[in-house]
Amino acid sequence: MNPQAAQGYSSVAEVARRARAASRKLARLHLSTRNQVLLSVADCFEKSVRSILGANKLDCDKAQEMADTGRMSQAMLGRLRLDEKGVAEMAGRLREVASLADPLGRRIATTELDDNLVLYKETCPLGVVAVVFESRPDVVPQVASLTLKSGNAIILKGGDEAASTNEALVGLWRETLQEFKEAPLESIQQLHSRVDVMELLRLDRDVDLLIPRGGREFVEFIARNSRIPVLGHGEGICHVYVDRAADLDKALAITLDSKVQYPAACNAAETLLVHAALAKDFLPLIVAKLQTEGVEIRGCPRALAALPPGKIVPASDRDWSTEYGDLILAVKIVDDLDAALEHIQLYGSMHTEAIVTEDEAAAGRFLEEVDAAGVYHNASTRFGDGYRYGLGSEVGISTSKLHARGPMGLEGLTTYKYKLRGDGHTVASYYRGDRKFRHRSSQRAKV
Amino acid sequence: MNPQAAQGYSSVAEVARRARAASRKLARLHLSTRNQVLLSVADCFEKSVRSILGANKLDCDKAQEMADTGRMSQAMLGRLRLDEKGVAEMAGRLREVASLADPLGRRIATTELDDNLVLYKETCPLGVVAVVFESRPDVVPQVASLTLKSGNAIILKGGDEAASTNEALVGLWRETLQEFKEAPLESIQQLHSRVDVMELLRLDRDVDLLIPRGGREFVEFIARNSRIPVLGHGEGICHVYVDRAADLDKALAITLDSKVQYPAACNAAETLLVHAALAKDFLPLIVAKLQTEGVEIRGCPRALAALPPGKIVPASDRDWSTEYGDLILAVKIVDDLDAALEHIQLYGSMHTEAIVTEDEAAAGRFLEEVDAAGVYHNASTRFGDGYRYGLGSEVGISTSKLHARGPMGLEGLTTYKYKLRGDGHTVASYYRGDRKFRHRSSQRAKV
Repeated sequence: MNPQAAQGYSSVAEVARRARAASRKLARLHLSTRNQVLLSVADCFEKSVRSILGANKLDCDKAQEMADTGRMSQAMLGRLRLDEKGVAEMAGRLREVASLADPLGRRIATTELDDNLVLYKETCPLGVVAVVFESRPDVVPQVASLTLKSGNAIILKGGDEAASTNEALVGLWRETLQEFKEAPLESIQQLHSRVDVMELLRLDRDVDLLIPRGGREFVEFIARNSRIPVLGHGEGICHVYVDRAADLDKALAITLDSKVQYPAACNAAETLLVHAALAKDFLPLIVAKLQTEGVEIRGCPRALAALPPGKIVPASDRDWSTEYGDLILAVKIVDDLDAALEHIQLYGSMHTEAIVTEDEAAAGRFLEEVDAAGVYHNASTRFGDGYRYGLGSEVGISTSKLHARGPMGLEGLTTYKYKLRGDGHTVASYYRGDRKFRHRSSQRAKV
Repeated sequence: MNPQAAQGYSSVAEVARRARAASRKLARLHLSTRNQVLLSVADCFEKSVRSILGANKLDCDKAQEMADTGRMSQAMLGRLRLDEKGVAEMAGRLREVASLADPLGRRIATTELDDNLVLYKETCPLGVVAVVFESRPDVVPQVASLTLKSGNAIILKGGDEAASTNEALVGLWRETLQEFKEAPLESIQQLHSRVDVMELLRLDRDVDLLIPRGGREFVEFIARNSRIPVLGHGEGICHVYVDRAADLDKALAITLDSKVQYPAACNAAETLLVHAALAKDFLPLIVAKLQTEGVEIRGCPRALAALPPGKIVPASDRDWSTEYGDLILAVKIVDDLDAALEHIQLYGSMHTEAIVTEDEAAAGRFLEEVDAAGVYHNASTRFGDGYRYGLGSEVGISTSKLHARGPMGLEGLTTYKYKLRGDGHTVASYYRGDRKFRHRSSQRAKV
C-alpha cells in the first residue's frame, strides 16, 4: 500500500478532530468530484481483487480455526468470506451510488417573508458519521460510498474477525483519494479497538451521528453510553398477518419468503398471525410447507388445537418477543384484524410488518394504523432494505421515528439549514408594525 | 369547568398509556375535525377571557409576592402576565394553525419497484409528544395546536408559577374537545409535579419525543436522564459578523436589532465579530449606539485598543461562550472571514448566525460553511423563530442536526412510513433472477 495512504493516530480525539476538519472540505466538494472518487474506487477494487481476496483469506483462515473449535458460528464465517463475485458486486454498488442524484443543496422550501427577505430551506451534510459494525466486509464500501456522496466524513470500526479485509478496503479507498487533491484523505478513517470505540462515544462535539450495526444488546449499549445521536435498530420482530380475505397462494408465498429466504436478516418474519377463519384451511398448508423447509413451528394453544397432535410445539410467552434470526416461526391464531393490530403493537419492533389480504379496507387500516418503518400489503417483509427500495445502498435500517426511518440511504445522512437572505432587515420594524410578513411559500422543489 | 373535562390520574404511566391510545385515534382524525377543534378552542378562549385572566391573576399575585421578596425576576413575572390582547393573540394563532396545510398523509416519494409493487413514503404523526416548559402560558395553545394539527397526543408540564393559568387553558381545551366525539379527550393531558416529570422520562415505550423548553442546564438534565429522543436547544450563542464589505447602515441596524430588540431570546446575539478593516470606522459608531441603549460592551484587546480608554470593558475567555440573555455584548476584532468562521465554529451553539456584507462571495461562503440551524445574510438573528418563518407557530427551536433543525413547526412533529403495496411479491424471485427491480421514481409530491 502507498505509505501515505496508511492511517496512523495517537488518539481517538485526534481522529475525530481530523474528521471534523475533513467534513468542512467535503461539504464544499463538487458533485462531479464526489462521483469521480466513487468511480475510481470501484475501478481500484476491481484491479486489486487479488490483494483484497488475499487479505480476506487471512481473516477466513483465522475464522475457520475459530469455527472448527466452536468459537465462531458457521453463519458468521459465511458472512465474512469474499469471492471475486463479491468484489465485483462491491464495485457495482459504488457505481450505483455514483449514479444517484445529489442529496446536497436541494432546496426543500422557499418562503418569501417580505420584500428582499427570502428564507431557503436547503439540504446539507450531517458532518461526521461513525459506523460500528461486525463481520461483513461489504459494509465498508456501502457506508463509505453513501457518506462520501452525502458530503460526510466517516469513522469506521469493523469487527476484529474482518480486520485484514477492512484494512485492505479502507487502504485502497485512501490510496484512491490521494489522486484527488480537493478530497481530504481524512474523509475516511478507521478505529482499531473496542477501547477506541468507548472513547469515541464521548466525542459528541466532533461526531454527529453513530450508526451501530449489530445485535440488540450492542445497539442498546451504544445508545446508553453516548450523548451522540444513535440511529439503527435494536431488533427486528416482524410479523406477517394473513387476513380472513387473503389469497391463500399469496399468503403461502409471502409467509415462506418472509421466513426462509434469509432467516438471519432483521426483516425476516418471526411471527405469523393467522385469522381464525383460516385455521382449518390455511394453517395446515403453510405448516407443511414451512416444515419441508426445515422451519420449527411454535404455536399458540389455538394453533396447536387446529393441527394433528405433535405436529408443532407449543409457544411460550417469550416467543412473541423473540427475534430468532433462524428457521423458527411463532404462529398465533387471532380473531380479527383488531387482534392482529393489538398483537403487533404489543410485540412488534416497529421495523417491517405485512398483511396478506384481498380486502382493500383491511389493508388500508393495517397500513395506516401499524406504527412501523415499513407497512406492507401483499408483499414479503424481506423487501425492507435500502437496495430493494432503490436507495442504491443503505447505511443501516432505523426503527427510530426521528430523522431517518427504515432503510437509511443518502437522505438519512443529510440534514438541512435555513438560509435567510435579507437587505438589512430587522425584527423591530415588524414589532412596531412598520412592516408586515408576507409568508409566501413557493412550490416545494421537485426532485 | 365541566367536571368531565377535568383530568385526574393515578400514575404517570397511566397518563402515557392514555396518550398512546389517544394517539392512535388522532392519527385517523380527519383534517376538517382537527381544524374544527382548533377554531372552536379559539372561540372558547375569546368567550372565556375573564376566567382565563382571573386564573392568571392568581398566578401573578403569587409571583408578585415572590418578585417583591427577590425570589422571582421581573422578567419572569413579565412573561407570566396575560392581558386581553394576549388572549386574543392566542386565539389568532390557533386560527392560523387551523389554516395551515395538512402535514399528514403527504406523499414524499413514490417508487415503482416492479409491476404492481409500489413503494410510497408518506408522512404520519410521531405519536405522543411531551413538552416541559416554564412560565409563559402562551406555550400551551402554541404547542397544543401544533400537536393536534399533526395528529399527535400531547402531555404538558408547565412551570408551577403559571399553574392556575395553564390549568384554565387546558381545562377549556378539554371542554371543547368533548364536543367532538371522534377527538379523544386524552389528546391533551397535564402533569403536575417535577416528580411526575422524572417518572415520564422513563416511559420510552409510550412517549416518542420530549421537548424541554428552558435553560441549558434543564435541557441537558432531561437529555441525560431519558432514553426518549429529546429536541430543543441548550443555549443560543449567536453571532453577528460584520464583514469588510459591509454596508455600515445595515450593520448598525442588524447589530442593534440582534442585541437589544429582545435580549432574553435565544436568538439574540451574544457576540459581535468585526472585520479588522472596520475597527476605526464602524466600531466606535456601533459601540456608541449600543451604549445609548444601555448595552454593556466587553471587548477583545484589539477592540479595546481601537476605542478611547475606559470606553468598554475587557472580555475574558469565558465571555465568548456565555449566553448573557441580557443587555451585554462581547465584541471581537477578526482579521478576515476565515477567522470569523473559526470563531463561530469554536463558540457558536449552531443556532442562528448572521453575516453583514455586500460581498456576495463572502456571504455565500458564510451560508455554506457555518454549521448552524439558521445562517443569515444581511438580516437580524432575531428572525430565527417559527412564527417569523411562516410555520404558524413553533413547539421549540432545535439545535440538533437530526430530525428537525431550527424552529420546529408541524413538520418537526411528523415522521414518515414506507407503505409497500404488492400482489404476492417475494424477494426470492429477485434473488433467483426471475424478476428485476425497476426502481422508477415518480416526481416528489408538490406541496
